[in-house]
Amino acid sequence: MDLIAETIAAIRPLDEAAMSAAREHQDRLTKPRGALGALEELSVRLAGIAGVCPPPMPEPAAVAVFAADHGVHAQGVTPWPQEVTAQMVQNFLAGGAVVNVFARQFGAGVRVIDVGVKTDLPPADGLVVKKAAHGTADLTREPAMTPEQVRAAVEAGIEVARDLVAEGHRCLITGDMGIANTTASAALIAAFTGRAAENVTGYGTGIDDITHDRKIKVVRTALDRALGSRDGTPTTADPLTVLAELGGLEHAAIAGFILGGAAARVPVLLDGVIAGAAALAATALAPAARDACVAGHRSAEPGHAAALWHLELGPLVELELRLGEGTGALLALPLVQAAVRVLHEVATFDSAGVADKA
Amino acid sequence: MDLIAETIAAIRPLDEAAMSAAREHQDRLTKPRGALGALEELSVRLAGIAGVCPPPMPEPAAVAVFAADHGVHAQGVTPWPQEVTAQMVQNFLAGGAVVNVFARQFGAGVRVIDVGVKTDLPPADGLVVKKAAHGTADLTREPAMTPEQVRAAVEAGIEVARDLVAEGHRCLITGDMGIANTTASAALIAAFTGRAAENVTGYGTGIDDITHDRKIKVVRTALDRALGSRDGTPTTADPLTVLAELGGLEHAAIAGFILGGAAARVPVLLDGVIAGAAALAATALAPAARDACVAGHRSAEPGHAAALWHLELGPLVELELRLGEGTGALLALPLVQAAVRVLHEVATFDSAGVADKA
Repeated sequence: MDLIAETIAAIRPLDEAAMSAAREHQDRLTKPRGALGALEELSVRLAGIAGVCPPPMPEPAAVAVFAADHGVHAQGVTPWPQEVTAQMVQNFLAGGAVVNVFARQFGAGVRVIDVGVKTDLPPADGLVVKKAAHGTADLTREPAMTPEQVRAAVEAGIEVARDLVAEGHRCLITGDMGIANTTASAALIAAFTGRAAENVTGYGTGIDDITHDRKIKVVRTALDRALGSRDGTPTTADPLTVLAELGGLEHAAIAGFILGGAAARVPVLLDGVIAGAAALAATALAPAARDACVAGHRSAEPGHAAALWHLELGPLVELELRLGEGTGALLALPLVQAAVRVLHEVATFDSAGVADKA
Repeated sequence: MDLIAETIAAIRPLDEAAMSAAREHQDRLTKPRGALGALEELSVRLAGIAGVCPPPMPEPAAVAVFAADHGVHAQGVTPWPQEVTAQMVQNFLAGGAVVNVFARQFGAGVRVIDVGVKTDLPPADGLVVKKAAHGTADLTREPAMTPEQVRAAVEAGIEVARDLVAEGHRCLITGDMGIANTTASAALIAAFTGRAAENVTGYGTGIDDITHDRKIKVVRTALDRALGSRDGTPTTADPLTVLAELGGLEHAAIAGFILGGAAARVPVLLDGVIAGAAALAATALAPAARDACVAGHRSAEPGHAAALWHLELGPLVELELRLGEGTGALLALPLVQAAVRVLHEVATFDSAGVADKA
């Protein structure tokens, strides 16, 4: 069995016994029942993921920033030069980007993976090279990836998740860098949710209305080319083929990363629209992988809201972020850790001598 | 000049120069302009509060949990026995409550202030006794506090803020404990926003529909008694009188705590509906105090949404919490710290050698 099939086969449903134990424990703690709202539900699901109550504290955490370039950049979908992908990788390695600042604040590790940057990067501490291609092809004209490339990128993501878990990480965080990658995200989200291009294509990191119109047309052209006529329902094509047709190498890698985390029973904290698109691919490959995913935030991109709706995941943070890199997911990490810490540390009514309600 | 008047006189408007400097610095950082959404706006306001860019990191932080009892408990507005206020204070002092767990996680101090618990509590480390009364009177029948009591409670809050700032704290967090205090909160919010009792009275920590109906009637009775006929506009009565008529001792103390933080140019991170009601009182006393307030979260209480709307403050976290104690504000603390840390640590386009967009 190959790595992808083996990983999918290892993914188990949530552990109902651990979830029941978590619910019962929450009801004994010195607070009104349900008073922690979404954090209580999250703590229950984290018990279900780990298969034990209380679940282990989701720390140390690590963010994996998958970087890659996009052939669709040639269509003029963004004002940023393509070189910025490689330049930002250098910024990550130097510790100067927002993802580094947030990771330092919250005690998370940062791993940068070149899964498809167009240029070759000099070796550096903290840089993992798992290049599946030197950027994708232009998805308006041909499949973005070959079958071999998409598999290599998914496998790279699985390997990164496995390595991080083997090193002791107990929370995996998705990150991304790739100029033009919101265009590929919109195409994937349209394919996997059935929505129209204009409903899932946003302003990315900041474009004008003319560029936005062009971006919508690019997404529509790609969908027409890859999927033919669409009827508003999610595609039933093979998920790896959809990824290869419309995705980026970082989308494929993040899909693998999610599968790898789910197989290891470690929660995967999703960042923004790129992670949302990748999670749709991962759950199309393995529906139970959805249960290992925690939506860190909801970004300003309309496609992200559509992806979270389809995944039935509610975001922990909504701050109109549109940065990527893993930054939105990192901001949710303290909330995830707080949810679990409650199960470990809060006193019960009995132990604290507090009267329960009448 | 007395302590309250002196504190109000010390509150200054936001520093426009520091805010402009923060906006300009944000635009030089290696991220698309505006990509950090609400956190960018927050970083600008924190510079305005401190009067310097970058503003100091909001740490160490401390949560002040003001505890008090309520005469309106006799009206059957909650299924929790009144003794739970004192029992939860003991739980806070023992470190077993959710507020303690979150404070430990985020490195914040916890100070518990008895500003009006009905019983006398044994002395303990971490407990500050500033009792302005042994609980309030029943606000459906008479003013909840005398003029002397409300002033003593506001002054207690100012003193706690001053002491925490003098000890080096750079972020003040509001916390509360008081069985029945969502009833007094609803009455204060109705008075200061002009809304009807039924639109601001919620289910608190969890009551049935019959109790909820009774609670609405209690709030309406209190408003009729204290304010007479109402026309849907905010009361113009003296804010200390409104607090005395309808509030709790912890509401008065938190109002003072907000004034004290604002006067010291230290941000005050607001918890839920109790803090929202207190902030309405504080800003009625000193409108500029609003600018020192950061809304930590929005709770499940309808009155809290009304208060934040009136204050024009957007919450950082929305997780359907309804616990109080300062827990919702503590969950927002990492976000506030992250917002400031960006100004201190993220590389600029120039320094990182990253190309800006075309």
